[in-house]
This record gives sequence, C-alpha cells and structure tokens, in this order.
Amino acid sequence: MKPVALMVGVLSRTVALSALLALGLTLHAQAQTDPLPSWNDGAAKQAIVNFVKDTTTQGSPKFVPPAERIATFDQDGTLWVEQPVYSFVMYALEQVPALVKAKPALAKTAPFSTVLEILKGDRAALAKLTMPDLEKVLAATYTNRSVDQFNAEVTKWIAEAKDPRWKKPYTELTYLPMQEVLKYLRANGFKTYIVTGGGQDFVRTYSEKVYGIPPEQVIGTAGVLKFSYAKDGKPYLFKEPKLLLNDNDAGKPEGIHLMIGRRPVMAAGNSTGDQQMLEYTKAGGGASLSLLVLHDDAKREYAYGPARGLPATKVGTFTQALYDEAKKQGWTVISMKDDWKKIFAFD
Amino acid sequence: MKPVALMVGVLSRTVALSALLALGLTLHAQAQTDPLPSWNDGAAKQAIVNFVKDTTTQGSPKFVPPAERIATFDQDGTLWVEQPVYSFVMYALEQVPALVKAKPALAKTAPFSTVLEILKGDRAALAKLTMPDLEKVLAATYTNRSVDQFNAEVTKWIAEAKDPRWKKPYTELTYLPMQEVLKYLRANGFKTYIVTGGGQDFVRTYSEKVYGIPPEQVIGTAGVLKFSYAKDGKPYLFKEPKLLLNDNDAGKPEGIHLMIGRRPVMAAGNSTGDQQMLEYTKAGGGASLSLLVLHDDAKREYAYGPARGLPATKVGTFTQALYDEAKKQGWTVISMKDDWKKIFAFD
Repeated sequence: MKPVALMVGVLSRTVALSALLALGLTLHAQAQTDPLPSWNDGAAKQAIVNFVKDTTTQGSPKFVPPAERIATFDQDGTLWVEQPVYSFVMYALEQVPALVKAKPALAKTAPFSTVLEILKGDRAALAKLTMPDLEKVLAATYTNRSVDQFNAEVTKWIAEAKDPRWKKPYTELTYLPMQEVLKYLRANGFKTYIVTGGGQDFVRTYSEKVYGIPPEQVIGTAGVLKFSYAKDGKPYLFKEPKLLLNDNDAGKPEGIHLMIGRRPVMAAGNSTGDQQMLEYTKAGGGASLSLLVLHDDAKREYAYGPARGLPATKVGTFTQALYDEAKKQGWTVISMKDDWKKIFAFD
Repeated sequence: MKPVALMVGVLSRTVALSALLALGLTLHAQAQTDPLPSWNDGAAKQAIVNFVKDTTTQGSPKFVPPAERIATFDQDGTLWVEQPVYSFVMYALEQVPALVKAKPALAKTAPFSTVLEILKGDRAALAKLTMPDLEKVLAATYTNRSVDQFNAEVTKWIAEAKDPRWKKPYTELTYLPMQEVLKYLRANGFKTYIVTGGGQDFVRTYSEKVYGIPPEQVIGTAGVLKFSYAKDGKPYLFKEPKLLLNDNDAGKPEGIHLMIGRRPVMAAGNSTGDQQMLEYTKAGGGASLSLLVLHDDAKREYAYGPARGLPATKVGTFTQALYDEAKKQGWTVISMKDDWKKIFAFD
C-alpha cells in the first residue's frame, strides 16, 4: 500500500498539518481549561471532577462504559429557581385569566377566583390554595386540549413571562454552575436527563434550548394521551385529564426505568422529592455520584430548608432528615453560598 | 503559529499519513458500497434510499435537522419472525413449567394446564387459549417480581430458547434487510427506536446486542412499577400486575409521545397494530416514510394476511383494509418475496 500512502500524503500534506495543528491546540486548550469555572474549589467541585475522571478513565476500577453513563437531574431548585412558586405552577396560574375570558362564570368559582386574587398581588391568597385546588387549576390548564395546542400555549408563555424578583424570563434563571456540570458530563460521554415533578410536555418545550437536553431526555409528570382523528381525518394526540405518571418521590426511579431502562450513575436533586432517585442511583453498586443542592444563599438566591437552621417552606422541602441521609449515604451536598462563585450567567 | 505547525507536522507526519489514508479509503469505500445489499432493486429499496437522501441533503426541500431524525420500528413481523407465536408470548408459555414446579397445583388449573398441553406439542390446545387466558399467563410470568429478577430470567431464556422451525435462537431470526435499514439510517444521523406491542422490559434485555438499539430507545407494553426497599434497606423496582401502557394500535403513537416527545419522520410496521403509528408519522406534514412489511414468502419465511389472497391468521393481521390504506396514503409496501434478496443473515 506504500505508493497509495505516498500519493495521499503528497496531495494532502497541507490539510494534514492543519488538521493536526488544530487537534493539538484543542487538546492543549482542553487540558488547561477548568470545566467548572463558576465553582469555588472545595469538596463538592472535587467530588464532581473526581467522579468524571474515575468513570471515564480506561482501566480505572470505577470505569463506566459510555452507554451506561446516564445522569439524571431534577429541575426546579436543582437546575433553576423554584421560589416563590415553581414555574410550571406559575404557568398554570397565569393561564387562568384566559380561561376566565373564555368562560366568565369561572371568575366567581373557586379555585379560579382565588387564583385571580393571587395574580392581583394578594400573596395571602396563595396560602389558601390547597393541593386539590392546585390540581384543579393544573388539570384546567394542562389537559383537555391537543398536545400541539398545549405546546403552542407554553411556548408563548415561556417567551414572555418574567420572574417577579429578577424581572427576567424564567429561562435565564438557570444556575450557571449546574449548566457547567451538564456540559462537562456531556463532553465526557454522559447522556444527561431531566427528571422533574413538573409537567413533562411543559419542560420539553424549552429543554433543548435552555439546557441542551432534547425532549426524549425529559422525564416528568405526564398525563394519559388519547390518539384521535380531527374532522379532516388528520390524527392528533389529545391530553386527557388523567394522571399517568406522578414523577415525584418513588415516581422518579419508576419513571427512570420506564423511560430509560437503565439505572443512572449520577443524579442531582434538592428536595425530598428527589430522595428515591438519589437512593436508586447509589444502590447500583458501582461508581455513582449523588448531588444535593442546598439553598443557603438568601442574598444571591434564596435560603430555605431546615439544614443550617433555615426555615422550611412549602416548596423545596430539603428537610433535616434528608440532610442527615445525605451525610449517612455519602451524597455530596452543594452549598450555593460557599460552592458557587456565580449563580446566574447574568451575575 | 508556523513553527508550532512545523514541529507538530514533523513529529506526527507518519501518524497523519496513516490516518488520512484510512480516512480516504473509508470514504471511498462508503461511496462505492450499497447500503442495502440484501434488497433487490425496486420501488421499495428506491423509496428508502430516496428518503434518506432527501432528508439528509442540506438545501433539499425535504431536509430534516439531525435532532428530528426519529425512526420507529415495530418488532414482531417487522424486524424478526412472529410466526407461529410471538417470541414474547413463547417466553411466557415456556416459563410455565417453572411456575408449576414452584406451585404444583397450577398443573391442574386452567390456563396453565392448557399451556402444558401446548408445550407437549398439542397445537390444537394453542387455539383453545383465549385472550384472557393469555393475559393470565403473561401476568404470571412478567409481573410480581423485581425488574432485576425478570431481566435475569429473560436473559437466560433468550440465550437458550430455539425457534421450532429453524432450530435457531430467536435472536438470529431477524430480517437482514431490515437490519441494513437500521444501520443505514443510523449512519445518516437517524435515531432508531423499537415500538413494540411486546413487553418493553423483555425486548430491552437484548435490543442493543441484536439491533444496536439501546434500552432507552425501546418503547413497549409496560406495567406499573413499584419502588420498594428490600430487607437490607436496598431499594429496588417491583413489577406490579397492572398494565400502564398497551403499546399496540393507538397506544403506539401515545407511547411515542410519552417516551420521545417528537413525531417520527419514518416508521415501519407489518400489521393493523402499527396503523396508527404509520398514520401519525405521515401526518407530520414534512418529509416522511411509512413502510409496511408484507409476509408473502411461504418458502423462505411465511405467507399470511389477506393481501395477495393469502389467508389471515391470528397473529400479524395485515388485513385487506390495511393494504388498501397503504396504497391510498402512499405508504411503501415491502414484499418479502420480491424485495428481499436474503431474509436472514444465515441464508
């Protein structure tokens, strides 16, 4: 094959040199760049870097084949802000005026009347909203419409809605350090998933743009679908007002098996709703990393949960018991205050 | 940057030349190689090749971005043999002796007693098995055990079980032409999925090895899972005897949206159970390809279905109505007899 090699070589030497130079510079740049620049040096950052090195180094006793590199992330409170109200709930509340416009009688019917009070700024009304109330509002805004209609409604809202504190789109309130973890994992052959208690179809409308996570890697709370035909004979999917998968607590590992069929080797969460996912991940036996985000930065974000003596709130229940389990199981607790140099990209 | 380029070049010229040579030969080989060598030239092969070219050529009006290249395949009768009995059903029947050994009273209890007759070779007994009977046998062999236990049982069976006609493992009875389509699509940036009426966990145990399709790309009939703790505190998933997703008929597009969240641009099936998936794929509006495998080769495989005047059977109901719809909708009907040069890799 020598003559062929020579000929290819002569024709393409310039190309080859450029390619090699580019490759050399890229490798050099990678070796020098900190994959987690928004993290302060400390145990949490070190645990993540060590995990990635251990699981991707050929010959390491903790090596994980690329196909099994599954990493699952809770969304609310783990990848973006969940206070004062989960965004997927805020969406439902802010759709109520449109519902009332279509059916004016709803303005005087609970819980829709209560929601109108909340939207007028009555924070006390928010406390009056019970779980069955919330379920009614969620059913009225998430179901009884086609998948296409729902997607269009969410896409419009997410482009326009603003968080009350920062006055920015919710999609800008993602945690930069966690975005870096997602990218770092993907650059090392991991498949990153969102496993959220929020609506699966809701999160899928923006997951690719916001997190680089495609819809097929979003697992969330999902309702029953009904395949139907429109009047013109065209088939479509209708969202029935019936729950199929409650992707919280035990529902998270159950949803993970249903949708992925593999056990994650890495998981991240921030509340008791993520506990079973973190336990399931750890119980795989091989290398694993379980992360818990602790909200202890009242100045730059919020401080809640009883760990460090902070008050518990209705959302994001990072309880003392969960904190104790994290310590017992050897999960890595991330202090937003101490471990994160920056919280948002706009900081 | 020139001195660096020169240095890199001198040090690595030999490597560079070899790499380029390898690359050149590969590209040359690809240009020359027929991606579908087991297909006879004809309308079906041409439709597949045209579809791949149209959807992957930049600037083509039918271009599909890589992220949206989703292709879904039914398994039984589309990717492998489904006669005389679906393999996932055969599995259930052949597990019955072990059930009877554990609980001897079952030997005299229908439908388990009937199954024992079938396994002894009484083909008439097979016809006596009603759908509720079959559901009982499936529930007894697919549920009420941990996911890990089920996976171990299936893995053992699939390694040992043989098809009655060819006396070969079921995993060797895949259609070579369809394996070529799977590889051809993946080489062109498509993500290939199995969407099967068979058990999701069942198919996932071998899908990667047999089809190159990872478990997270297998959608199938699935039961409710229950996250539980073993006596030693270790969490595990238990398969409850309750159906969550019947992945047949309308259940196919419903399952596709639940698990993928995108509409496929290509789908392949062989029976009325695949009709809604094929319709849903076509209704996307853009480029799409819907394939229907017609079993018309009694000599090399089986001939069934009323198209071409063949008798309908209990399994694989490729009805005349489906054939008519295929023609009306412009789906591509694949004749195993005329379109496939070889059926199995061992032919």
